[in-house]
Formats: sequence, C-alpha cells, structure tokens
Amino acid sequence: PSHDSITCTVDDVASLSCLKSDQEVYFPFSFLKKHLDVSGKVKDGHFEWHTSYAKMRLPEKTYNSSGLFGHFATYSVETRERVKCINPLTGVPMSTQWSVTPYYYPIQIAQYGLEHYSRLLSQGEESRSVVVGTNSKEWRGAPGSLDETSERIFFVDDMEKKAVNLSTKDDISNPGVYVSFSSDPDLSTVSFSYKSHSPNSSFSILLTVKETDQLVVLHYVPREDDRCVWNEETNKMVDNQATFFYSFPYQWGEWVEITRDVMVDAARALSTMKGKGRTKKESNVILRAGDISIHSISFRGHLTIRQEIIQSRNEHEKAFLHAADWFVANQDSSGGWPVGVERKVADGRLSLPSGWYSAMGQGHALSLLTRAYEKKREERYLQTAEKALKPFGKMASEGGVRNLFFSHPWFEEYPTTPGTFVLNGFMYSLIGLYDYAQLEKKSPPSSFSSSFSTASSLFQEGLSSLRALLPLYDTGSGSMYDLRHVALNTPPNLARWDYHAVHVYLLKWLVAITGDEGLNQVADRWIDYANGKRAKHN
Amino acid sequence: PSHDSITCTVDDVASLSCLKSDQEVYFPFSFLKKHLDVSGKVKDGHFEWHTSYAKMRLPEKTYNSSGLFGHFATYSVETRERVKCINPLTGVPMSTQWSVTPYYYPIQIAQYGLEHYSRLLSQGEESRSVVVGTNSKEWRGAPGSLDETSERIFFVDDMEKKAVNLSTKDDISNPGVYVSFSSDPDLSTVSFSYKSHSPNSSFSILLTVKETDQLVVLHYVPREDDRCVWNEETNKMVDNQATFFYSFPYQWGEWVEITRDVMVDAARALSTMKGKGRTKKESNVILRAGDISIHSISFRGHLTIRQEIIQSRNEHEKAFLHAADWFVANQDSSGGWPVGVERKVADGRLSLPSGWYSAMGQGHALSLLTRAYEKKREERYLQTAEKALKPFGKMASEGGVRNLFFSHPWFEEYPTTPGTFVLNGFMYSLIGLYDYAQLEKKSPPSSFSSSFSTASSLFQEGLSSLRALLPLYDTGSGSMYDLRHVALNTPPNLARWDYHAVHVYLLKWLVAITGDEGLNQVADRWIDYANGKRAKHN
Ligand SMILES: [Ca+2]
Ligand SMILES: [Ca+2]
Repeated sequence: PSHDSITCTVDDVASLSCLKSDQEVYFPFSFLKKHLDVSGKVKDGHFEWHTSYAKMRLPEKTYNSSGLFGHFATYSVETRERVKCINPLTGVPMSTQWSVTPYYYPIQIAQYGLEHYSRLLSQGEESRSVVVGTNSKEWRGAPGSLDETSERIFFVDDMEKKAVNLSTKDDISNPGVYVSFSSDPDLSTVSFSYKSHSPNSSFSILLTVKETDQLVVLHYVPREDDRCVWNEETNKMVDNQATFFYSFPYQWGEWVEITRDVMVDAARALSTMKGKGRTKKESNVILRAGDISIHSISFRGHLTIRQEIIQSRNEHEKAFLHAADWFVANQDSSGGWPVGVERKVADGRLSLPSGWYSAMGQGHALSLLTRAYEKKREERYLQTAEKALKPFGKMASEGGVRNLFFSHPWFEEYPTTPGTFVLNGFMYSLIGLYDYAQLEKKSPPSSFSSSFSTASSLFQEGLSSLRALLPLYDTGSGSMYDLRHVALNTPPNLARWDYHAVHVYLLKWLVAITGDEGLNQVADRWIDYANGKRAKHN
Repeated sequence: PSHDSITCTVDDVASLSCLKSDQEVYFPFSFLKKHLDVSGKVKDGHFEWHTSYAKMRLPEKTYNSSGLFGHFATYSVETRERVKCINPLTGVPMSTQWSVTPYYYPIQIAQYGLEHYSRLLSQGEESRSVVVGTNSKEWRGAPGSLDETSERIFFVDDMEKKAVNLSTKDDISNPGVYVSFSSDPDLSTVSFSYKSHSPNSSFSILLTVKETDQLVVLHYVPREDDRCVWNEETNKMVDNQATFFYSFPYQWGEWVEITRDVMVDAARALSTMKGKGRTKKESNVILRAGDISIHSISFRGHLTIRQEIIQSRNEHEKAFLHAADWFVANQDSSGGWPVGVERKVADGRLSLPSGWYSAMGQGHALSLLTRAYEKKREERYLQTAEKALKPFGKMASEGGVRNLFFSHPWFEEYPTTPGTFVLNGFMYSLIGLYDYAQLEKKSPPSSFSSSFSTASSLFQEGLSSLRALLPLYDTGSGSMYDLRHVALNTPPNLARWDYHAVHVYLLKWLVAITGDEGLNQVADRWIDYANGKRAKHN
C-alpha cells in the first residue's frame, strides 16, 4: 500500500515526518522511543515495543536469612567499571566511583561478600582444583636468566608443612623463582601462603588473554600506592604485551594467605588502560571463565612459601569471609564504616563530607555478618553486627543514618540534611536488620539477646514508615528513586526502569518476609507500570 | 513511497498493524492516542499531537480581592448538566450531581454568584432593557379563552406605584391575564414584583426555540415539589410543543421580586426530557443569546402585580446578590453550609454522610461575601463570613473541614476520615481566606478585626502546608488530583488535564498573591508537563 508523508508537530515544538493513510496518521518509532523513553526491536518478523527495558525479576516466595541474598549470586561486583581492584591485602574491592583515588566503599564490599556467599550456596564450591609446587623440582630459576642459581632450600616442618625458602635479588627486573601452572584455562584462581623476610619481596603472575593473544604480567609489589593497580610505563600495549603492578603493603615475618582470582586481576589491570576517546565504561575490560591462560607464578626477595599452590576455579568462601572480616576489622567506635570520600547529592545541593555512614552499608553489613556467623559461629561477627545497629538510632544531623520524613523515621542510604529518602537503600537496610534479628533463633550467646530485639524494633519501625510513605514514591506510571524533591522543591527524581525493577524485587522480598498484602499490591501495580499499564486519572 | 505492513506488539499484549520502511517502524496514532491519552488532529495540512487537551490559562499578574474572581466570568454554571434549575424562589442553582432530587450545593451556588459578579465587572450590566406592562391596555385576557373577562383592576398607590389587581380562576388550564413581550431576542431576562392573595396564584411564560421552532410553555406554580422543574405528562415533544413546570413555594401577602433568565429556565426545562439512549450529558440543552423568542407572560389567581415588567439581557448583580443572600440565610450555627446529600469518595471506600461541609464551599462563600460586602457595605455579609471561618479550625472527624497530612493542616474539599487532600479545593479555600482578610484594609466595623486576623492566620497556615506538600502532587509528568492513595493504599488518583490546568491556574493565582518563587517554579514545571516535557529519571 502507498502512504503519503505528512508533517507532524508535537506540542508545537518537535516537527517530524509522519505517514498518513485515509484514516490514520503514523508516527515514527525513533521519535516515540526518544520522547517516551521506551524500547523497541524487531523480533521474529514483528516489532516489539517495551515500555520498560528492564527485566522484572521476582525473589523466591520464602526468604531465609542465612540463605541466598536476593539474586546476588548473579551479581558481578568484580566486573563493575567503578571497581578499581580487589585489594591484594584485604581481598575486598576498592571503588573509584566518586574519587579517582580508590577507596573502600562498604556497600560494595558487602555486595561482593554476599555475591560470593550466594554463589557458594547456589553453585557450591567448585571441587575441581589442582595443586602445583609440591614437588620441589617444580621450583625453578627462570631459564636463561642471570639468576638461574637463586638459592632455594626445601624443608619439612611440623608446623609449616612442606615449604621452600628462597632468596634472590629483589628488584622487579629479576625473574626470580617460578612455578608453572596447570594449563586448565578454568582454573585461574590461585591460593598460597607465604612469609616474607625482607621488605621488598614480591611475586608476579604471567598470563595470556586468549582472544587477543596479549601477554600480561601482574607484579604484586610491597608498596603503599593509592592507585591499587597501575601500568608503570605507558598506557598502551607494547608488542601486544603489558605489565601491571598491584600494591601490597609489606607484612613482616608473618604467614600471609593469598587468594587471587587472576582473571579478575587481569581484567581490572587491563581496564586501567584508557583508550583514546573511550569512556571509563567503554574501557572496562570484562574477562570470563576460559578467556585467559595463566602460565606461571614467580617469587623474588627473601621468602618462605608453602609448597602447595592451589589452582581452582573460584574461592567463594574465601571472598565471602574476606568481606566479612573487612567489616570486623574496619568498624569505628560509633559502629559505622565511614566512607572516606565526600558524596554530593542532587546536583550538589546536598553534600556529605568524607566520613559518612550509609544505612544501606550498615544493613548490607548486617546481612553479611549474619551469614558469616551462621557459617563460622565466631562471636566477633556478632559483636560487630551488634555495634552496627548504633547509627540506626542516631539522626543524620548527628552523624547517624536516621532522618524523619514528616515524623516517620527513615534509614538513609545517603544521610544528608535535609534527607533524600532513597527507597532501595532503605529497603536493603530493613533486610539487614531483619537478617540479624533472625539469629536469635539460632542459639547465639545470650549476651546478644537485647541486640536482636533492638534490630527487630528497628525493622518494625522502618516497616511502618515504608507502609506509610510508599505511596509517595508512586507516580501512577512508575516509581520515584527518592523523595529529595520534597525538601528541595526540585522536580521529582524518577527511577529509571532498572531501579524500578529493584524496587519491585525488594518489595516482593519484604512481602516474603512479612506477608504484607498492602506492599504486595503496590509491587503488583508497579509491575503493571513496567508493562505500560498506568493508574487512571479522575 | 511504498511501505510494508508489520505486526507490532506493545508490552506483549496489544497487537496492531504498523508500517515499516528500511530504517523505521511507524505506529498508528489511533493506538498512541488511546495508550498514552494524548490528543491529535490535522490542522492546516499537518498533524498536531498535543499531550494535553486542556488550554493552559493564566491569571492576571496581580489579584484584587474585590475584583474579578479568576476567570469565572467565562464560567457558565447555568448550562452545567448537573444543574437542575435556578430555583425560582431563592434565585440560585440546585444540583443533581449526587442525587436525583435537586439539592443546594454551596460550591455551585457560590460559583454562580462569583460568575455573575465577575461578569458584572468585566462586561458591566447590560444597559439595554425595555419595560412592558406600564400601559394598562397591555394587560389582556387570552383571546378566545373562556376567561376573556378575567377581572382586572388598575390602580395607583404611593407605596405600590402603578399596579394591577387581578382575579381569575387559578387552575393551570386557564390562560389568565397576559402581557406581550418585546420581540428583541436578546432581552430574555424578565423581572417583576408581585403579591399573591391566594394559595394557587401562578404565572407562565411562553417562548419559541428558534432553531427547532419548538413552542415551550413554562408554568411557575406554587407547589413544594422536589423536582424543581419537570414535564408533567410525557417525556416527549407533542406537536413540537412542550409544557414544563417550575415549583415555587407559596408566599402569602408579601411583595416578592422575581427575576428569571427565561433562556436558562427553558434550557433547564428542555434538559429534563431524556432522549432514548442518551446520557444525561447528551440530553443537556444549552441555549445561547438569541436562540429563543419570548412571547408573553400570563398570570392567574388573585394577585397584585406592579405595572413594570422589565425585559433585559441579563441581571448579573441580582444573580450575584441572590447567591450572597442565600449564604446569609442558610448558614447553620457551626458557621457551615451543610450539604444535604451523602458524598461517596474513592469508589465508596470513604463516605461523608449528609450534612457535611466543604472547605471549598466555605472558601468560595468567603470570596463571595467579601465582594457582597464591598458592593453593599451591609454588615450581615461580614457577620456571615466571620462565622464561616469556624469549620476551618475544627477537625473533619469532629464535623469541621480540617485534616492533617503528616501533621500539616489541610482544608478539605471533602472532609473524609482519613483525608483525601484534594488540591484544587484546598487552594480555592485559601483564596477565600485571603479575600476575607483583605477586608481589614477597607475600613470595616472594628468588631470584625479579630476575624480578619483569624482568616489571615488560617491562610498562612494553609500556605505553609501547600509549600510543604505540593511536591507530593508532582508525578514528574503531571499532577495528582488528591492524595487519597496515601491513606487508602490505592493507585494514585491522577489529575486529568483540565484539572491539571486548574492546578496551574490556582498556583499562579497564589503566586500573584504571595510572590512565592517556589510555587511559581512548580507552576512553570507543571506547564511544561502539559507540553510533554517530563522530569528526568536518575
Ligand atoms: Ca542505591
Ligand atoms: Ca473540585
């Protein structure tokens, strides 16, 4: 059929080329997509319009506070563009979201821990692993190097099992003593224990990125460097080969356990190489299982190393416990984990000076510490969790995470004054409080009883606020990310579809916990919004 | 150019026929119109999409509490489908919006008064008028009727000026004594004074609807009939002629002043004839200046009538004062004007039993009484206005109009418990409070001083609530009509575009009063929404 062109105007502004037949005018989807912020694509010969680009996931109908944490098993904190590195000493991620200098961000660390805990539960620990270095002949000087004669003494000791003492020149140009890895490309996580006897001892891992045939050297060097990972010479591949450094504070004369997911370390390292005109996001390198081959690990300086270097697919439990232990080690006297960077909110109208706490961080920590206690039954996890409740009782203006919205208490992801009342962070904080309170049923030491009732009261108090205030986030066609506009008199900050999906997920999660039919109705309505069904007008 | 058809789906539900070219898919506007609730039409060879069908009006930059009331001069309460009649005794409209039996609705009566006040100011009283009946020969028995010999006695009296006493059989079939009207079709408002000496005296007006050549007889009969206006025999035109009755309570031995806009009475009468399968709205007959010819007025029974029947275009001042006087006469001891019908809100989830007050009605009454006092300087208007403040200080649950939204006071158009927080009615109530407080500057009796400060405090209190709560009505793409959803956990009640336009108008009106820049920004943003510009998502 033939159709004529007709000029269309939209609200007297946009002018575009439409088509017309006798009865109908047709608008181009390229305009609708932009004007309405919808998605569309051709599929199986027809064209699909989708109001929301985000997939609506729903949690399981029942929730267990020592079980999976949401769908965090599908998270990948390690591949986020804003994650600079997994710090080699603490074993937890560092962020560069709001500062070029990497810093510890409690929410991110907890999510990393909960991700690995959830993967551990859902996939189990991968049993396939190989052990290298047990045979003393595997420990060799680099072939052809000047230091092929590096001193090596092998010994067996009841305490230290089988070990190798080695002594080489400690400058980084020295290839040192190395052990070759198994060539199984899936086994790219490396774990070992060592003790250093000199300030400059270091180790290095050699690998190839298979698709591009890039040779990558990762040097782990004892140096306080706030870049965490960097490329010393240039920002470019030279001869399709690049060398990176991870900083690694010096530990004197103590056994240190190291676990590195080399695939992650290589991806984070390669991501530091900024391409011309590429955004940070575009520069972000993501590697997947099988994408690299690891070749060898080498050591230099004065070290004792256990003769058992484990190559495995992943070490979820270790990553999970590194995160939990980070929270035990880094809590301050107020019970919080201060964020060491300033946070500006609402185009700079609000700001949190360095040192702030997040209720979402506190809540995630509780979810993580609850699981760590269940797994290890170590009281230090309870002690840390108990203290983590304190900021929930303190107003934001006094350094806590609590704000009032028209007299309803709210736990603030960003505890500005006036408040912002971010919805998703608040709901995560409630789940953390709930998780910790559930430990009461698991025969913990009785000294923690009152902290469980505190957590439970905070949860109930927050739930009441959620019931009262949730309608204020409902736009009739979507949801609001926060309520910042109420105090600031700015336009409302609408949630984009992926956050809307998070809202629905969290509401359904809280419904699984509480059975609240009112919250469930809101969640169902919000699912309808994502499917283009809007509230009626009068 | 030729375009192929392609099937389109929308959120996996709707399936429709689109067009496609190499680069583009085109959606039919008939679908978009329905799915997005937008408007569109061809104009001057191009197609115009309008997000809002409503015209955005803005008030004058300055506001005067004894001047025009908004754009009420363009209102036409008389032609609203829900207005059953202008009651012949009180001279004010009666409503059938929520009850088939007509009832007095204070908001509607005040709007009728403010409409005519505003027309009076903007158009002036139409000076063109004719006086008929002054010549005694004009008073005649109906030609050919059995009662051609109706007794008529003409006399002059200092008190009563020139008058006619007449005595005829009082049954309605008797054509009685009549006076012919001037044929000027614009002069269809009739005013006269009479005194009845018998319980059954009545009068009738004969007219023609020009376009359809329908002959219409309007009988004004002394009978308490709660239908107000009706057609006795059938619901159809017989021989293109129809007879209607207006009820008119009997007034014994007192002079009564009558003013009837015959065009309005005829339109309301014709609107009672329900067409087969027509809605009330479709049955609503609207007549405009020049649409009818009035022929004669006839009287029967025992009456004294002044020999001065005025035919004019309209009597705005009388209509305005009828409304103001209705408020003086009908206020109850609590200072309110109880609405005599039950009001159900939110699909029956909330209900106001008969006898409720509306803050909007109280506020409109204040705006009207303020103007009546300015015009007439009669203290009774001040006394009524002063008492009208009382319900503003009383909670809805105790019979007042005040509710709290998270501790912020709100004056309720519909004072349900829990509240609904209708936005437009609240803003109108603020304007009423402001209007009355302004009288302080007009040298009123000093005994009213404290009532002006009460009104002023209520205004300021309400303004603070408006500033605090207005963001909650902002959806990012439009506005909410009320906040009923907060207490009821229902979907938000989005304002349709004409109410959105009212919101903008009232905000700009309050900006004219207060100079508040924050309210002004919201109003401007809401204008943008009507032009398809939406708030950003995060
Ligand atoms: Ca967040
Ligand atoms: Ca209204």
